[in-house]
Amino acid sequence: MARIAIDMDHVIADAHNGLLDWLERSYSVKPSMTPGQRFRDVLNADQYAALSARLETAEFFFNLKPLESSIETLELLQRNHEVFITTAAMFVPNSFGAKYEWIKKYLPFFEPKRIVFCGDKSIISADYLIDDHIHNFENFEGRGLLFSALHNELDSWPDRLSDWNDIGNFNF
Amino acid sequence: MARIAIDMDHVIADAHNGLLDWLERSYSVKPSMTPGQRFRDVLNADQYAALSARLETAEFFFNLKPLESSIETLELLQRNHEVFITTAAMFVPNSFGAKYEWIKKYLPFFEPKRIVFCGDKSIISADYLIDDHIHNFENFEGRGLLFSALHNELDSWPDRLSDWNDIGNFNF
Repeated sequence: MARIAIDMDHVIADAHNGLLDWLERSYSVKPSMTPGQRFRDVLNADQYAALSARLETAEFFFNLKPLESSIETLELLQRNHEVFITTAAMFVPNSFGAKYEWIKKYLPFFEPKRIVFCGDKSIISADYLIDDHIHNFENFEGRGLLFSALHNELDSWPDRLSDWNDIGNFNF
Repeated sequence: MARIAIDMDHVIADAHNGLLDWLERSYSVKPSMTPGQRFRDVLNADQYAALSARLETAEFFFNLKPLESSIETLELLQRNHEVFITTAAMFVPNSFGAKYEWIKKYLPFFEPKRIVFCGDKSIISADYLIDDHIHNFENFEGRGLLFSALHNELDSWPDRLSDWNDIGNFNF
């Protein structure tokens, strides 16, 4: 049995498509993004300011959809391993309640005592950390597994998981 | 430099006197409590149910006072050490916003990225954990320092800190 810490945004909750949907509804724009690009690279200043404000709202987080296969795979994973959800919610205090309710809604089997709202993830004690940002692996004592997202596709990291099928097949 | 994780309720925020004050205001009762006693030992069923409900409110947490010398000592401590505040907020989701605002109000120097809302504290990676519950030291990889509170005075634990002067004088 391993202890596996899993990030939430862009790993369990589909923040990327949540932002794309919102941009289309609000601005009728559908930016095409290439690997390594971030929203600030493809939006004008007004659009990016509005998107940043949107990222500060509880509504944004609550309305995200789960990534494909994330719920079922996580449910299986936590039968054999000690799984924690570790999200850097301290940078968006408005998201606390929404994130907690989202987990209750989509992961009703998940024990709240294994949810962690943090900032600096080097505070996490685990064998593995699955995250979409390599900076979260700095000073992490376990093994960092980079979960692929458009914004990190050009990042160089030895261990990469492309999707939840990869997580399900990984030998923890 | 050590990494020191510090619990919030009963260690930084004075939950015990907060509850006593509330009982006096609400029920005009002022229970006298002896070491090892908890509120459920000294209240009738109605009072204890009301107190438990009070503990679920944001207002309760926001209105707590800091323990004597906690703010000044914590401010000094974080100049020389990596200090995190690690509170089991997952058991009281209503407290998220209030706890965050409380820290901003009383500890304006404290970086939000070093706040952790968790449940099971074995997820914390630190050299020391200062906490008022010995069960939080189970599976904690560092050294647990028991912060004295009436409810833990009969608990047997090798390392005990009586108050914030003891924290200030401890050789981390």
